Amino acid sequence: MSVDRYGLGRVVGEPGVLPQRAQRLDPSLPLRRGELLVEVEALNVDAASFHQLRGEAGGDAKRVGEAVARIVRERGKLQNPVTGSGGMLIGRVREVAPEHPQIPPVASGQRIATLVSLTLTPLELSAVTGVDLATERVDVHGHAILFASGLYALLPEDLPDALSLAVLDVCGAPGQVARLARPGMRVLVLGAGKSGALCLAEARRRMEGKGQLLALDISPTALASLRNVGLCDDTLEVNATHAVDVLAAVERATGGALCDLVINCASVPNTEMATVLATRAGGTALFFSMATSFTAATLGAEGVGKDLTLLMGNGYVPGHAELALSLVRTEPELRALFESRYAR
Amino acid sequence: MSVDRYGLGRVVGEPGVLPQRAQRLDPSLPLRRGELLVEVEALNVDAASFHQLRGEAGGDAKRVGEAVARIVRERGKLQNPVTGSGGMLIGRVREVAPEHPQIPPVASGQRIATLVSLTLTPLELSAVTGVDLATERVDVHGHAILFASGLYALLPEDLPDALSLAVLDVCGAPGQVARLARPGMRVLVLGAGKSGALCLAEARRRMEGKGQLLALDISPTALASLRNVGLCDDTLEVNATHAVDVLAAVERATGGALCDLVINCASVPNTEMATVLATRAGGTALFFSMATSFTAATLGAEGVGKDLTLLMGNGYVPGHAELALSLVRTEPELRALFESRYAR
Repeated sequence: MSVDRYGLGRVVGEPGVLPQRAQRLDPSLPLRRGELLVEVEALNVDAASFHQLRGEAGGDAKRVGEAVARIVRERGKLQNPVTGSGGMLIGRVREVAPEHPQIPPVASGQRIATLVSLTLTPLELSAVTGVDLATERVDVHGHAILFASGLYALLPEDLPDALSLAVLDVCGAPGQVARLARPGMRVLVLGAGKSGALCLAEARRRMEGKGQLLALDISPTALASLRNVGLCDDTLEVNATHAVDVLAAVERATGGALCDLVINCASVPNTEMATVLATRAGGTALFFSMATSFTAATLGAEGVGKDLTLLMGNGYVPGHAELALSLVRTEPELRALFESRYAR
Repeated sequence: MSVDRYGLGRVVGEPGVLPQRAQRLDPSLPLRRGELLVEVEALNVDAASFHQLRGEAGGDAKRVGEAVARIVRERGKLQNPVTGSGGMLIGRVREVAPEHPQIPPVASGQRIATLVSLTLTPLELSAVTGVDLATERVDVHGHAILFASGLYALLPEDLPDALSLAVLDVCGAPGQVARLARPGMRVLVLGAGKSGALCLAEARRRMEGKGQLLALDISPTALASLRNVGLCDDTLEVNATHAVDVLAAVERATGGALCDLVINCASVPNTEMATVLATRAGGTALFFSMATSFTAATLGAEGVGKDLTLLMGNGYVPGHAELALSLVRTEPELRALFESRYAR
């Protein structure tokens, strides 16, 4: 019998349904072939889910903890029934079953963070020991199971957990940029947040000082922090939902050439058209914003008759975690930016 | 002053808004620089829009015609206020203003079909002369304006209009496949409809008889028509919303190798995961289904830890109209299939 790579056997009562869509998972032990057992220390709840739980609990940390315990007891995973979202967890490896692929290699006792969503991770809790409303972190005792296809990263010993988690949360973005950015290109990043900053840092590396690297955001403060740490050549202070304004700004900045590669890391909807218009004919637009509308992007490109490659940002690229962590390790200003903004 | 490439000057009362998003366009003459004037013969209304109009009109053709006339009078374009969608038109070129790019070259008197949506095409009607409820075609007198960025195709004289329109409606799909399919690949097309058939035909051409070409659909009848005209090597009768069943069928058909290229032409939602699972690690998934969810595709790939290129099918590729028409011209069985199913 082959390994149950996607954890279908852990789904309760819905044959053929994948764990992410399932109502309930079975987190019981013993471990099965190809699985990995984690002794869980803390759950980093997805922002949308935490916001909902906190609201429902009237801002009471204890009641948030009770709600988390109840969801996990009922569903065998932390998938918020209202928002549908999960989060990630950190913990210590306790057992690696035969035939687990071990990428990266891992041994019992090592600390890891999961890079697959809690919405598909079998989880059993014996206690919730604390809820930090500020960092959306829930301290727990319990165990989780990763399938053979389940991504994880070793938690670095040289970086604080909060910093590592902030970076790992968006590590797919710079991983994709590494494949696309080349010396001499004109590159634009829309959105000066966490993933935008990592994309800029990786693009700058790949461009080897040749080309033009632009950052666009509505916030002058966010752009100033990027500029101060030298993450881009120019900043464009524009509302990315105003496609025509973005086009005008990018035309000015590039002498009319537009950009070879545009990376959308915006946190708001309706920025597809700005992305399309800022990309030159024959160029590539890479969408990481979770607010991206498929139809807005494809019909938008067709509507203006532009031949460009429209890529959806896959959150997984082999080696993405190490690559993203290496960025904050080797760039002190980027690390300082992350520590001050995302990992306090 | 440069040419108003995207027709911003035709938007009434909303500066900086693109024509597709605008409430109202100004279709008045004279023609401006970079524009093209079409004497309109017929509007091919988008299926969703026509369905809504017909329902509202209680199935009465005359009242559908009145509704079309009213929308165009109020908005200066045929954009259904309920569905937001448009359609395409056919007509005769009446004037080409200076600085229009003319791709393909076009002269006054030639018949064309527009390949950009009616939702962004300035339009003025003097009369609605007929409504065909079966073909969703509205015969009219009037004029339309194409911007410099507005795509169109010359209507072939050797093919019936209905056939040409059926092909042109989805011509972007085979155009993208032409760039991706190569000899020796394993290629899967999800969805045996109009765009699926053209994608299969183009993939077969590009594969030069080497590799494996699979068609997957829930309908045995649709699959049989494809098989009968030799459009694929194998057919898989599976519900594409059941990802695990699709995976099992594709594993069986490919001896476990999975596919290098999976092209999603499904007409229903929730087929992203099937697409991801059917694609081999390192392969490419190309999404043409307008029901595609960006988050389902990207989070799905991440959730199963699969490194694949996720492409959104851009409706425009240079030369796409000629390429698609050449497929039905050179393949009599494909033409017969289209004539019997989509162009009666």
